[in-house]
Amino acid sequence: MTASAPLPPGVSAADFNQALKEFAGVVGHDWVLTSEEDRHTYLDAFAPGDADKHACSAALAPTTAEEVQALVKIANRHRIPLWPVSTGRNLAYGGSAPVLRGSVVLDLKRMNRVLEVNNELGYALVEPGVNFFDLFEALQAQGGKLWISTPAPGWGSVIGNALEHGVGYTPYGVNANSICGMEVVLANGDVVRTGMGGVNPGGQEWQVFKYGYGPVWDLMFTQSNFGVVTKMGIWLLPEPEAVANFAISLPDMGDLPVMVDTLRPLRLDDTINAPYTITNPYRSIMDPMSAQGKTRSTIYKGPGCMPLDFVEQTLRSRGEGMWNVGFNLFDSDKGLDLREAKIRAAFDKVPGAKVKTMRWHRGEPLAGWMRVSPVLFPLAGVDWYGGPGGHINYAPVVAPIGSRIAEVYDMVYRRYVEFGFDCYCGFLNIGGRAIVVNPCTFFNREDAEMTRRARELARVLYKDGAAKGFGDYRAHISFMDDVADMYGYNDHAARRLGDKVKDALDPNGILAPGKQGLWGSAQRVHKGKPA
Amino acid sequence: MTASAPLPPGVSAADFNQALKEFAGVVGHDWVLTSEEDRHTYLDAFAPGDADKHACSAALAPTTAEEVQALVKIANRHRIPLWPVSTGRNLAYGGSAPVLRGSVVLDLKRMNRVLEVNNELGYALVEPGVNFFDLFEALQAQGGKLWISTPAPGWGSVIGNALEHGVGYTPYGVNANSICGMEVVLANGDVVRTGMGGVNPGGQEWQVFKYGYGPVWDLMFTQSNFGVVTKMGIWLLPEPEAVANFAISLPDMGDLPVMVDTLRPLRLDDTINAPYTITNPYRSIMDPMSAQGKTRSTIYKGPGCMPLDFVEQTLRSRGEGMWNVGFNLFDSDKGLDLREAKIRAAFDKVPGAKVKTMRWHRGEPLAGWMRVSPVLFPLAGVDWYGGPGGHINYAPVVAPIGSRIAEVYDMVYRRYVEFGFDCYCGFLNIGGRAIVVNPCTFFNREDAEMTRRARELARVLYKDGAAKGFGDYRAHISFMDDVADMYGYNDHAARRLGDKVKDALDPNGILAPGKQGLWGSAQRVHKGKPA
Repeated sequence: MTASAPLPPGVSAADFNQALKEFAGVVGHDWVLTSEEDRHTYLDAFAPGDADKHACSAALAPTTAEEVQALVKIANRHRIPLWPVSTGRNLAYGGSAPVLRGSVVLDLKRMNRVLEVNNELGYALVEPGVNFFDLFEALQAQGGKLWISTPAPGWGSVIGNALEHGVGYTPYGVNANSICGMEVVLANGDVVRTGMGGVNPGGQEWQVFKYGYGPVWDLMFTQSNFGVVTKMGIWLLPEPEAVANFAISLPDMGDLPVMVDTLRPLRLDDTINAPYTITNPYRSIMDPMSAQGKTRSTIYKGPGCMPLDFVEQTLRSRGEGMWNVGFNLFDSDKGLDLREAKIRAAFDKVPGAKVKTMRWHRGEPLAGWMRVSPVLFPLAGVDWYGGPGGHINYAPVVAPIGSRIAEVYDMVYRRYVEFGFDCYCGFLNIGGRAIVVNPCTFFNREDAEMTRRARELARVLYKDGAAKGFGDYRAHISFMDDVADMYGYNDHAARRLGDKVKDALDPNGILAPGKQGLWGSAQRVHKGKPA
Repeated sequence: MTASAPLPPGVSAADFNQALKEFAGVVGHDWVLTSEEDRHTYLDAFAPGDADKHACSAALAPTTAEEVQALVKIANRHRIPLWPVSTGRNLAYGGSAPVLRGSVVLDLKRMNRVLEVNNELGYALVEPGVNFFDLFEALQAQGGKLWISTPAPGWGSVIGNALEHGVGYTPYGVNANSICGMEVVLANGDVVRTGMGGVNPGGQEWQVFKYGYGPVWDLMFTQSNFGVVTKMGIWLLPEPEAVANFAISLPDMGDLPVMVDTLRPLRLDDTINAPYTITNPYRSIMDPMSAQGKTRSTIYKGPGCMPLDFVEQTLRSRGEGMWNVGFNLFDSDKGLDLREAKIRAAFDKVPGAKVKTMRWHRGEPLAGWMRVSPVLFPLAGVDWYGGPGGHINYAPVVAPIGSRIAEVYDMVYRRYVEFGFDCYCGFLNIGGRAIVVNPCTFFNREDAEMTRRARELARVLYKDGAAKGFGDYRAHISFMDDVADMYGYNDHAARRLGDKVKDALDPNGILAPGKQGLWGSAQRVHKGKPA
C-alpha cells in the first residue's frame, strides 16, 4: 500500500492491513493489488471530474467462487466495502471504479472459464471474467453454430454487460433477456444457485428454464449489490440462414416523429426482429469522422453547438438525410425478402425516405456490421474536443411514440445549445416497446471548465427529464443517486424495498455500497460523500 | 363465523373476532365472508385428500390497493395469516385454498378493472380480479388489435396465471414472460411500483420497459409470498395476419425421442414460433372422450393402467398415431408458407409422420383452436374414473433432448402401471429450451383408496424424479414443501435466501405462509402441520 491510497471509510490503517493479510491468505500476495500503479488501473478513465473521488484502496483478484466466499467473510469481519467488477469495462458508467472511495475492488477477471457451450440447447455457462472475445472463440471452436450479440469494444464481460442491462443487437435484444440461471455468492458467504440450478444432484436444466420453482431471483441480482455473480447461463442465438442490414434515411430535421412512428408497428409485430438505432444529424457527422480518428476542429472551429444549417449542409453534401436508422434482421433469405417488402412499403409512404440494404448468407465470412464477432477500436467520438476525452450519457427510457420522442429530443437539444456542446444523440431501441434516448456529451478531460460544464449539463438534463416523467435506465457512478432520485413513487418506495432487502442480505453493507443508489443502513452515512 | 370454522393458528377466538371487526371497518361487513357456505367456496374442489386440511377461517374481498394496505396492517397487529388469491382458479394446484389451515383468504376478485389498453404499444394494465374473459372483451371493445393467450377455462385471473408461471400458446410463451411493471402492497402496508413505475409524476413508461433502474423485482413477486400484486402490466400480441395450426402424428410407441429431437431445432431457431404440446397415447384417447363427456368405463372395464396394445389398437382404429404434437404459428400467410415448408421437410425424414395443417386469416372469425378467445368447458378428464373427480399433476422441467425426455416418461409410465392409473401425459413446451413433462393422475374423490393411491403416486414420482435430478415448476398446496425439497443445492441455499427476504419484508409471516415452501421464521412452526 502506498502512502496516497485511501482507506475504506471508518477503517483504521491497522485493521485494513490486517484485512489485506487475510485476503492474501485466500488469493495469494500477488493478487492483493495495492501499488499505486495497480490502483491507477482501477480509476475511471473517462471520469467527468476528479477520478480520485472514486479511487479504490486496493483490489483483489480471486479465481473461484470458494475464494469469493472466503473474501466476503473477511470483509464482513473488518467492515471492508468490496466493489465487484467482472472485467471492469463499464465504460461511460465508471469503468472499474467504486462509488464509495476507499472500497476494495473485487476484480473477477481471473474467473474466466467458459464452463459449457451447449449447441443443442443454445446456451453457454460462463464465469464473470469471460469477455466477448473469449466466448466468441469458444463458440467458434465448437463450429460457430451459436451467436452472441457483441458490444463494441468486445473486451467487456458477458456477465457484466448483462448485469448492467447492456443492449444486444440480435432478436434476443437487451442482454439481460438472455440470462438463465446464476450462481451467486451472498454477502454472508453463502452460495446460491438460482432457478433450476437448485436441483441437485444430477440437474441438467439450470440453463433451459428461467423460472424454476418459487420466487425468481436472477434479475434482482442485476444493477444491484445483493450478491457476487460467479456463474451465469446465457441463451445464444442459433446461427441464422441469413442476415440483412438496413440503413434508412429521412431528409428533414422534422422527420424524427415519422421515423419513430413508422418503425413502431414494424418492431412491435416483429417484422423488424432485432433492435434498431436511430442517429441524429450530429451523430451522423461525428461517428464516421471519429472512426477515421478525426476531431471536431477539422470541420468546425466555432464555439458552442455546431449550427443546424452547417450540419444539414454537411450531410446533404454527402447525400445523407438528417435522421438515419440502422438495424439487422435475422431469418432465412426468403423470410428476409418478406420482411424487406413490408419495411419498404411502410417507408414508401414517407416523403424522401431512402432504404439501403445488404445481406449476409450462411457460409460467408462474418461481416463487421453484423455485430456478431467482437472487435477492438477506440470509443467513437471520445476525443471529439481533443483528448484525453471523456463522455457522459443521459439515458432516459421513452415509449416509441413520435411526439413523445420528439419532446425529449427538443428538451435535450435546447440544453446542448445552451451549454455549448455538439448534440450527439442516439436512440437505442430496447425491445418492441421502448427506446433509450441516449445523448452523449464529449469533453476534453484536461479542460476543467468544459468538464465542469459537461457535468452540469448532465444534472440539468436529469432534472428536466424527471420533471417531465422520464427515468434513466443506467447511470455513471458519480450520478447513481441522482438517477435513483428519479424513481420517487410513493416517497421512494422502490428504494425502501431495496434497502430492506439489502439490510437482510448484507447487514454490514460490504457489497458495492451506493450502487444504483442502494446504500443500506450500514453505509448510508457515506451517501453523497465520495471523499 | 360458524362453529366449524377453524381459527388462524395461535390466534384466540376473541382476537380473531376483533380482527374481523377491524377488517369489516375497511371492506364493509358484506365483504368479510365467514359463513360455512362462503367458506366452502374457498375449499379446493379437486383436493387430493381431505379438503378441510386447507380450510380457511374467513375471506375478505377488498376493492382497492388502499383497502389491501389497511387489511395487511390489521393482519400484522393480530398475526392473522392472509392467503391472497386473484380469482382463485388455480385449478389442480389448490384453487383458492391456503396452505395453512385457518388462514384468511384475501380474495381480490372485486379488483377487476382493466385500467388501460394501449393498442399502439401493445400492452394492458390490469387488476388481479380481471379474468381472461374480461380482458378479451376489453380488447375486442378497442378493435381486437391485441391478442391474449388464454388458458382453458377462461375464468382464471390474468395476473394470477402469470404469477403462477402459467403457459401461454402464442409467441409470447409462458405468461410470466409478458409481465411488465407491477404495483405491490408489501406486508407492512407499503406500496411499491416496480420498474419504470417508480418514475413519478408524469411517467408513461411503466409498461414499456421491464428493467427500470436498479434491481428488477417483478419476478421475485411470482410464485412467492413477498407482497400482494394489485396492478400488473402485461404485453399483448399484435393481431397477426394469419395463424396456422399444426397437428403432427408419429405412429409408434418408440417415437417419442424422434418427436422431441425433430421439434427441438425448429423451436430453438423460432421456425416454430410458439409453444407446442406433445400428447402421449393415453391423453390422445382420453381428451376427445372427455370433451364428449364420456368416462373410462365406456371403453375399458379392467383395473390398472389400460394395456398399451389396447391403447394402440384404439388409436390405430381411428387412424391416429401413438405420439401427437400440436401447435399454432403466427405470421403472414407467406411467412407461414416458409415455416410450413421447413417443418414438413424435417418431418419428411421421420418414418410414418403425418402433418395436418389449417389456417386462419385476418378478418375471419376467431377459431377455438387458436386459443385466443376464452371458453368455458369442464376440465378435460377430471371425471375419468367417475366423479366428483380430482387430479394431481407431476410437472418436472426437462430439457428437450429425446433421450432425456424418454427417460422421464419411462420412469413415469412404470409408476402409473405400478399404481394402477391410466398414464395421461402431456409435454408442455415452455420456450425454446424446455418442456414440462406433465402426467396427470385423475381420481374419483369419493373413492378414498383411489385418492390415497393418487397422492402416494405423486410423492413417489417426486422422489424418483428428484433422485434423477428433475425439479417441478409448480405444486399443489399439499405438496409445496415436497417440491421445494427438490431444490436442495448447497443444503437448500435457495430456501435460505427466500427465508431471509421473507423475514425482512414480512417479519410476522402474515402473507401466504408456506407458499412454494416459503414459511419464514414466524410461521415455520406450522410447516408440515396443515391441521
